[in-house]
Amino acid sequence: MTIEGRADAARRRLRLGQVGGGQGAFIGTVHRIASRIDDRFELVAGCFSSTPDRAKASAADLGVASDRAYGSFAEMAKAEAARDDGIDAVSIVTPNHVHFEAAKAFLEAGIDVICDKPMTTTVADAEALVDLVGRTGRVFVLTHNYTGYPLVRQMRAMVEAGEVGPVRVVQAEYAQDWLTTALEGTGQKQAAWRTDPKQSGPAGATGDIATHAMNLAAFVTGLTLEGVLADLTTFVPGRPLDDNGNILLRFEGGARGMLWASQVAPGNENTLRLRVYGEKGGLEWAQENPNELHYTPFGEPRRLLTRGGNGTGEAAGRVTRLPPGHPEGYLEGFANVYSDAAELIAARIEGREPDPGARLAPTVQDGLEGVRFIAAAIESSKQGGTWVRPA
Amino acid sequence: MTIEGRADAARRRLRLGQVGGGQGAFIGTVHRIASRIDDRFELVAGCFSSTPDRAKASAADLGVASDRAYGSFAEMAKAEAARDDGIDAVSIVTPNHVHFEAAKAFLEAGIDVICDKPMTTTVADAEALVDLVGRTGRVFVLTHNYTGYPLVRQMRAMVEAGEVGPVRVVQAEYAQDWLTTALEGTGQKQAAWRTDPKQSGPAGATGDIATHAMNLAAFVTGLTLEGVLADLTTFVPGRPLDDNGNILLRFEGGARGMLWASQVAPGNENTLRLRVYGEKGGLEWAQENPNELHYTPFGEPRRLLTRGGNGTGEAAGRVTRLPPGHPEGYLEGFANVYSDAAELIAARIEGREPDPGARLAPTVQDGLEGVRFIAAAIESSKQGGTWVRPA
Amino acid sequence: MTIEGRADAARRRLRLGQVGGGQGAFIGTVHRIASRIDDRFELVAGCFSSTPDRAKASAADLGVASDRAYGSFAEMAKAEAARDDGIDAVSIVTPNHVHFEAAKAFLEAGIDVICDKPMTTTVADAEALVDLVGRTGRVFVLTHNYTGYPLVRQMRAMVEAGEVGPVRVVQAEYAQDWLTTALEGTGQKQAAWRTDPKQSGPAGATGDIATHAMNLAAFVTGLTLEGVLADLTTFVPGRPLDDNGNILLRFEGGARGMLWASQVAPGNENTLRLRVYGEKGGLEWAQENPNELHYTPFGEPRRLLTRGGNGTGEAAGRVTRLPPGHPEGYLEGFANVYSDAAELIAARIEGREPDPGARLAPTVQDGLEGVRFIAAAIESSKQGGTWVRPA
Amino acid sequence: MTIEGRADAARRRLRLGQVGGGQGAFIGTVHRIASRIDDRFELVAGCFSSTPDRAKASAADLGVASDRAYGSFAEMAKAEAARDDGIDAVSIVTPNHVHFEAAKAFLEAGIDVICDKPMTTTVADAEALVDLVGRTGRVFVLTHNYTGYPLVRQMRAMVEAGEVGPVRVVQAEYAQDWLTTALEGTGQKQAAWRTDPKQSGPAGATGDIATHAMNLAAFVTGLTLEGVLADLTTFVPGRPLDDNGNILLRFEGGARGMLWASQVAPGNENTLRLRVYGEKGGLEWAQENPNELHYTPFGEPRRLLTRGGNGTGEAAGRVTRLPPGHPEGYLEGFANVYSDAAELIAARIEGREPDPGARLAPTVQDGLEGVRFIAAAIESSKQGGTWVRPA
Repeated sequence: MTIEGRADAARRRLRLGQVGGGQGAFIGTVHRIASRIDDRFELVAGCFSSTPDRAKASAADLGVASDRAYGSFAEMAKAEAARDDGIDAVSIVTPNHVHFEAAKAFLEAGIDVICDKPMTTTVADAEALVDLVGRTGRVFVLTHNYTGYPLVRQMRAMVEAGEVGPVRVVQAEYAQDWLTTALEGTGQKQAAWRTDPKQSGPAGATGDIATHAMNLAAFVTGLTLEGVLADLTTFVPGRPLDDNGNILLRFEGGARGMLWASQVAPGNENTLRLRVYGEKGGLEWAQENPNELHYTPFGEPRRLLTRGGNGTGEAAGRVTRLPPGHPEGYLEGFANVYSDAAELIAARIEGREPDPGARLAPTVQDGLEGVRFIAAAIESSKQGGTWVRPA
Repeated sequence: MTIEGRADAARRRLRLGQVGGGQGAFIGTVHRIASRIDDRFELVAGCFSSTPDRAKASAADLGVASDRAYGSFAEMAKAEAARDDGIDAVSIVTPNHVHFEAAKAFLEAGIDVICDKPMTTTVADAEALVDLVGRTGRVFVLTHNYTGYPLVRQMRAMVEAGEVGPVRVVQAEYAQDWLTTALEGTGQKQAAWRTDPKQSGPAGATGDIATHAMNLAAFVTGLTLEGVLADLTTFVPGRPLDDNGNILLRFEGGARGMLWASQVAPGNENTLRLRVYGEKGGLEWAQENPNELHYTPFGEPRRLLTRGGNGTGEAAGRVTRLPPGHPEGYLEGFANVYSDAAELIAARIEGREPDPGARLAPTVQDGLEGVRFIAAAIESSKQGGTWVRPA
Repeated sequence: MTIEGRADAARRRLRLGQVGGGQGAFIGTVHRIASRIDDRFELVAGCFSSTPDRAKASAADLGVASDRAYGSFAEMAKAEAARDDGIDAVSIVTPNHVHFEAAKAFLEAGIDVICDKPMTTTVADAEALVDLVGRTGRVFVLTHNYTGYPLVRQMRAMVEAGEVGPVRVVQAEYAQDWLTTALEGTGQKQAAWRTDPKQSGPAGATGDIATHAMNLAAFVTGLTLEGVLADLTTFVPGRPLDDNGNILLRFEGGARGMLWASQVAPGNENTLRLRVYGEKGGLEWAQENPNELHYTPFGEPRRLLTRGGNGTGEAAGRVTRLPPGHPEGYLEGFANVYSDAAELIAARIEGREPDPGARLAPTVQDGLEGVRFIAAAIESSKQGGTWVRPA
Repeated sequence: MTIEGRADAARRRLRLGQVGGGQGAFIGTVHRIASRIDDRFELVAGCFSSTPDRAKASAADLGVASDRAYGSFAEMAKAEAARDDGIDAVSIVTPNHVHFEAAKAFLEAGIDVICDKPMTTTVADAEALVDLVGRTGRVFVLTHNYTGYPLVRQMRAMVEAGEVGPVRVVQAEYAQDWLTTALEGTGQKQAAWRTDPKQSGPAGATGDIATHAMNLAAFVTGLTLEGVLADLTTFVPGRPLDDNGNILLRFEGGARGMLWASQVAPGNENTLRLRVYGEKGGLEWAQENPNELHYTPFGEPRRLLTRGGNGTGEAAGRVTRLPPGHPEGYLEGFANVYSDAAELIAARIEGREPDPGARLAPTVQDGLEGVRFIAAAIESSKQGGTWVRPA
């Protein structure tokens, strides 16, 4: 039982700052654990909350020195850029509406950015970020964390190698049930901001989870989206954003797809699932048991590929820490995106080429495509269901 | 471990004839086994093939007297209607294009009909059959056999009883892989007629399997289809009919759905799956392991309901033959439709009310709705994806 | 989607009688359905109950002529043997303690026997039956029905062909929960006789289900049992027979095994499971979803073999009725044993060699081995857990 | 979606040293990641290899200062005990034969110990460690890491609360396939030491994995082992230690169990599975998908309890980091043992009572029981299979 793939890093840890993720937040903790797993980052600064007291208290909790606990991201970007031991990178984990301004501030201060999704709330902002990343030459990594799962990397490599032949059909879905009732009315913080257009942007389930499923489908298949036809619905009375989306997809080259995203499907916790069918074979994977991938070469028995197991290749092995049968999960997949980001950032700092595998980390361009997909879905649905090309 | 539900029938066996299903056919054998399982039918006549020699040979194989092996269904309907010991019912198991004329002949001869799906190849023919059944007062049962599975009956009863609350989201799919390549070009008989518009009608996968998934969704939810938006595709070059359909659904009352039907999805044998989500709970069932039903009351753990097991009710128990843990399958589900048909036919003959449970057998009206769904899907797809109301 | 394997039988139906299986019985109905599925038998006589009124009523229910509804098996054997149209075979489906005398009566009358398991309640009786079958030359088939599942036949063929290499480890289990409480005290008929030594013989769970698991293991691996070490327990107070058995196995040639049989394991309905590991690969199969077989060639990904699907061979195909993805279940597996019996009986009557595949039906010798296994397990357990050679 | 349970630690990180786990080792990396996940430890010293060059190189890789990279554990214990900033605790991750002497050295130096399992290679050594821990008052945590899985904690809490009633039957198994062939002959380091009695001690699979399964069973049920009856086998020619163990268990109070451990079962990666059946219900859990627990109250449908999901309680919530549906895995479970250790160590240092939940971390007493179990199994098997009381 040898470990392939990631091990403890020999190199120095990168200095990391964080915007958002203070007490009571969910995803901030996830980002921090993910940054620690491979020991490539050390959290040294933060603007953990828009509420100053909570920001200070969070910093103390997290072992961040009080002089590096900032009250605003603008102040943080400026101060950290000025320090000799300033942060190498910032992790932006706020509600969606803050992503753009925060990312802009750090990029302009010359600091690499790791940002949660969806990247921005408007296509214009997303395009501006693409432009800014190009101009500054900074690293920008978007935490479409599901792309970090080893068997997702495996699927991508298999499609690329032609093992399923040209792709014909893509079935993607991300179903949850936590918003089946008006949880936002109870003061639950996660529900509150995610269903609030001011913080979440114009999309509900579509921005929160459909965008993950869409990104996953594109990451694995390499296909370019040509058209989106959406029927978005709000089932919970009084909720201003969609909580269920039924979406048809068309890809360049003729492949067709369906994408279902729902936050009102009782019995589904985080059922993110991708199925890809080509002329020569099929692949099926589900996030809730991410250590298993079903691969059927047409005309042969279905094969179970396990993370780290027989029949998996280098792309997965590179991001695998454990022998097969010892499950890795969500945090390890998230950590793979962080460690890829670390490699890209370290390479930039050191003026060298990164490990090519690290380039699989989601980019600002992926972020733009995600925002375009959201906008196209909303437009299609508003028109009663017409084909809209994301642009 | 008591057996509930069906047991050996005390009453006399009904005399059954069959149209189609001779040597080399698939579904004819299935119908015959299904008719035997509960011992309610005896096969005594048939027009097993449009080829006279094959028809005679098949009759001999099947133990049908040679004077009741007919060369045409018209002859058979006439001759059997004239006999004192003529058939009580006919089972029509031909390719689709024959269904209408054959059903018409027997109904007009006063003989009850059990017919395979899709009922007809045009909406006009389907409407004519509805009319004819009304006028003749004969029993007409359509073998949407999946409705015969005990846990499908269980789902329907649970939705009806409000156990999942008002339905919001329906996800139906039926995926296969056997037509991934141009099997019809090899002379394979099943593939040949199913991909031939002259025998199959205007729809490929949509008529063959989407219609099963649609019927199942309607049977379980009781919802009425309001709109269909379809993106039908033919992936295998040279095939004249669709082999993949991505379909959005809207139901009266606001529920939304998706339906995927594919015959080009490698790794899928007969993946018929239904998921229904309401305000209070969710149901998930898949045909390939039909003895398990997943039921999640919102906010509680997922429960596994097994056929015959704890937590299932009378609707399922009525059509269950074995204790839980002893799997029943496709043939038993099919047999339930046959045995319901037997009850309806016997009741008609005996001039009594049938067991109310038998009324769940799919009707000529279900057949019409199926054909309307197919027509709406084709129209929607031809228009590039617009909402079409089935009518 | 072609059907391989069994289809409607061209030959005449065999005339079948039944001993036991009247109103209120479970397994009698199962045998009757199994006998009908492939249309090889017609039920024409019976001694359905030891209670005369119930015997008559059951005969009427089952469409058996009243003059062939007998009050005792002895009378039935004699009368049927004397008729020109007497039964070709008898199916014995009584509680265990009747098997021996009934089988003896029919064999001595020259009538072929299909008998439920365990074959007898003593080793001496089992040996006597082996002897009698040898002397009379009649067909004797024991309904170890699980050997009739297509994928069980597939496993046996794979082991025989060396696909897993020499077998090292066998893990067999059969767990139920229906006797977790003292169900026999409630008057439930199945529970009552199965926990009563007078009707069931000296073994409880060991005779009822461990013997199935043991037979399955031997059928699949072809190994000969060399030693049994058992720890049998009765958990429900007042129950006179074992309801849980933990058993170690040793086979000739060095393979080792474990067998667990329990009727007090909540959550288990009929969890019959077999796992076989050899030098080159492993096989795993479970009765509750019998259409799937997991096969792992060492060093390669696990493969899912489905009934009728890619990678399965002739031994399974011969007993398969449906295309893959359309599940067959317990009754179809049971029917395979019946149809194999029909072939053996027809061949004997016609004085020809049977289809070699039919010889897989469990024999009187298998019955003897089962009874020896039970006796060895009881002896081992009484001695506090010592190795006992079944003999 | 709130996170319950562990979050970033507010308190200072503990200073950790490590013995073993240098380049090429597997489990050392696992321990380091586990120690980092909740940010409770910082690795500052080590004796990473018995080869000095490899020890130094490993230290450099791991960011450990060269003056704290030691050539022997004795030297390390002495030097670290003498430093003001010496380690708070040591993690011992060597092959088994080193555990005892290393643990002894650190305990005697007043340093808390986290040690891999099996604790020692003899019962006498294990008893000596129990004594030493008692005398020194230091914390000793044994990394029976599977007890750290949230749903294992959940099972324990449920059994303790009587939700399955008095336990009757325990089925434990741990199957692997990596030693199906003589991997140790290829120079594979993990295989080499694990099959070498000088490094592994007197037990092969029994010490490596059966002991995990046994510990898990005892942890969950709270039962005390009364007797062991083992049939240990070596299937791979030339291997000096057992690679398959078939074991019967008896517990005080009358419960019975079986335990199977194998390293030659093709298709099994790390199939650690526990099933517990009581008078009122059953529990089933498998390590390969540790986020699901099957719970059946007798007479009700089976329920799926998910990590973090509905129906789970505080014991699991305390060690849960993510919302349900986002899988946690092996490293997170391992980290729970580390974080419990951190709490116990911090409490000792700070002279306070620890969080009661942390007391679930496996102790030196658990280590002793594990070594006694191993010794009893070996003795039983040598005697040809007799009941041996572990002592």
